[in-house]
Amino acid sequence: MDIKHYMNEVGQRARKASRAMAKADTAAKNRALLLIAAAIRRDADALRAANRQDLDAARDNGLAPAMLDRLTLSDKAIATMAEGLEQIVALPDPIGEISNMKYRPTGIQVGQMRVPLGVIGIIYEARPNVTVDAAGLCIKSGNATILRGGSEAIHCNQALAKLVKEGLAGAGLPADAVQIVETTDRAAVGELITMPQYVDVIVPRGGKGLIERLMKESKVPMIKHLDGICHVYIDDKADIEKAVDIAFNAKCHRYGTCNTMETLLVARGIAPKVLPGLAKLYGAKDVELRADEEARKLLAGYPHLTAAGEEDWHTEYLAAILAVKIVAGIDEAIDHINTYSSQHTDAIVTEDYTRTMRFLREVDSASVMVNASTRFADGFEYGLGAEIGISNDKLHARGPVGLDGLTSLKYVVFGHGEIRE
Amino acid sequence: MDIKHYMNEVGQRARKASRAMAKADTAAKNRALLLIAAAIRRDADALRAANRQDLDAARDNGLAPAMLDRLTLSDKAIATMAEGLEQIVALPDPIGEISNMKYRPTGIQVGQMRVPLGVIGIIYEARPNVTVDAAGLCIKSGNATILRGGSEAIHCNQALAKLVKEGLAGAGLPADAVQIVETTDRAAVGELITMPQYVDVIVPRGGKGLIERLMKESKVPMIKHLDGICHVYIDDKADIEKAVDIAFNAKCHRYGTCNTMETLLVARGIAPKVLPGLAKLYGAKDVELRADEEARKLLAGYPHLTAAGEEDWHTEYLAAILAVKIVAGIDEAIDHINTYSSQHTDAIVTEDYTRTMRFLREVDSASVMVNASTRFADGFEYGLGAEIGISNDKLHARGPVGLDGLTSLKYVVFGHGEIRE
Repeated sequence: MDIKHYMNEVGQRARKASRAMAKADTAAKNRALLLIAAAIRRDADALRAANRQDLDAARDNGLAPAMLDRLTLSDKAIATMAEGLEQIVALPDPIGEISNMKYRPTGIQVGQMRVPLGVIGIIYEARPNVTVDAAGLCIKSGNATILRGGSEAIHCNQALAKLVKEGLAGAGLPADAVQIVETTDRAAVGELITMPQYVDVIVPRGGKGLIERLMKESKVPMIKHLDGICHVYIDDKADIEKAVDIAFNAKCHRYGTCNTMETLLVARGIAPKVLPGLAKLYGAKDVELRADEEARKLLAGYPHLTAAGEEDWHTEYLAAILAVKIVAGIDEAIDHINTYSSQHTDAIVTEDYTRTMRFLREVDSASVMVNASTRFADGFEYGLGAEIGISNDKLHARGPVGLDGLTSLKYVVFGHGEIRE
Repeated sequence: MDIKHYMNEVGQRARKASRAMAKADTAAKNRALLLIAAAIRRDADALRAANRQDLDAARDNGLAPAMLDRLTLSDKAIATMAEGLEQIVALPDPIGEISNMKYRPTGIQVGQMRVPLGVIGIIYEARPNVTVDAAGLCIKSGNATILRGGSEAIHCNQALAKLVKEGLAGAGLPADAVQIVETTDRAAVGELITMPQYVDVIVPRGGKGLIERLMKESKVPMIKHLDGICHVYIDDKADIEKAVDIAFNAKCHRYGTCNTMETLLVARGIAPKVLPGLAKLYGAKDVELRADEEARKLLAGYPHLTAAGEEDWHTEYLAAILAVKIVAGIDEAIDHINTYSSQHTDAIVTEDYTRTMRFLREVDSASVMVNASTRFADGFEYGLGAEIGISNDKLHARGPVGLDGLTSLKYVVFGHGEIRE
């Protein structure tokens, strides 16, 4: 197989399909989504069989248990995929919305129309549910998409893609609006990220290694985040109960997510009052605390206590480990965050109005929170309905990216024969 | 001079200054702009002297007359620079604006805050007025900026930068918020576009050659447009008088601008009625018409008539030349535009409602117009107040880019102690 030639053809078909998708009406897009949901329920047995093929091969290849777990398509996962599509149907269609039409002194009326980006390339790991979620969001937002899932899920992804194409065709939309890359050759990824003539944006969903490689090689803009080094700062004007609840939840609700707190900053004035209570909760979960010298004194006797080094402020543990630092107050907290944060999500716990306003304004992160757990940084929790990914970049979408992040605004001008004088 | 080391220091200073600019209040930013405007008026003589140094050197180096013209800082140009800053003062401060704060079922309230991008790198030709315009827009939008103007304007730019820094300092803002690159070595550009750790976005303002080179080498996202192949489509339901006015204005108001029409599409049904009238107007301006076979028959006798080839549909003439094509109707017009347009600005002239709506929705360009001259595609005409550039890209800003294009939206969350269950 000539990968370059194959991907070029995939790209051409996607570009062509994107033109039809851009003008598809809301009813057709919703009909496609409902047909796909119904087909997934109808063919659950066949999907499980395809998934078993993948799982058998993965076990033979010694795939790690956590990866096998993500690869597995349970009955519940199949039901959730179908429900997810129905939830996307319920979201308002973002495309074609016209806003801010204002008359100018020349007589023209100028505003903006929301339009699809065009072709979205999505690169993800061996998680079959992403195939359906991503396809659903791209269909609703009027985009064409090229999906490159982890090679371990190829049989399952092919079976799902067949159902997606069936739904598209049943609604009168081009089947090429959703294509999965049919080869597991890694060279296909290299082609996908270097054909800006066919692909308008790449959304990589995967580990840091994948994203770092794509950043080096991609010629297509990306919606991405590299890591989540999230902070909670407990101010000396914090409500102690809220502070303890939030700092415990932000670390221990789930360890492996990008919006999990990795560094806890505590104001010197309140540290003796909050750290002991927190230590009890963290201790019950065997969380390792990597603390600076001052915090270690306050945590003396904690069973999993180690010394934090410079490296810890830079680390996304994704584990039951937390870096802890005592700071003088809000100035030092903001400085620390703007130096070490990955600009994902950072929170302050305080009852002080002026410090709240300063933290919100001065912390340069995609999500900045007051008196809430960093775990809320999520498209569903923010009310976006669904999430294609999270962006830590500043251009285009920042933070959780929903349907709107797959669109752009073009200018529209209504005239009456006006010319420039 | 070690260019890499020098640019690295410029970048570090810019990043540091950007933190102070992000929290600067509206009054301080406006005060800086007014101080700079006053200093420019006060030091007009010194600015002209610096400009004479540049002009003498440029003449010795045989710079083309058009370039010398752009390089010249006339009394009027100096007054316009100062007035431009005062106009920026009058624009609302985009930074800190909070929008869409909505309560979620969990109790948190989620919305977005407009924040600066950080550090903007601007690369432009030997036009001293851009130095002041760009500095003004970056100051108002709370960004730091690194300006790399054409080397022919180095003395004038240095004199202007001194006044900008004086104004910043007078308002209590960091002088490093606006830095000009003090070397004319072209290697400085190579460094500027490859230090994403210090520069958040590059705005190149220059010819196609410059932008193509930057696109190949840049590691920093760009707000840019490569060219402007703009179309006017005269539908067979057009008002003939409007059609003639618009098609003449879109081509002949100015030849060298990116929003000038380069290809005229005319519906077969109306071509015999509009082309003769248009030919009279174009003839008076000696416009060369490069027409397809059918149009050539209708234009028989036109003194500057040549045959259009495939290449003409791809060409931005920036001159008194126009490609002309007869099309069957709106379908062929939209197909042609979506194939050959540079996605800058395209217009339809029609009185038909349904075709208007189709053209607006289906033409995939940054500006899509009905019954108006393409020459209106401009930040000032759109009411943005000023323009840092025009973007033909789909991510982030599309079309004319004003203050808002130098900003981004971060999420803000107001909580009351909420945690994820």
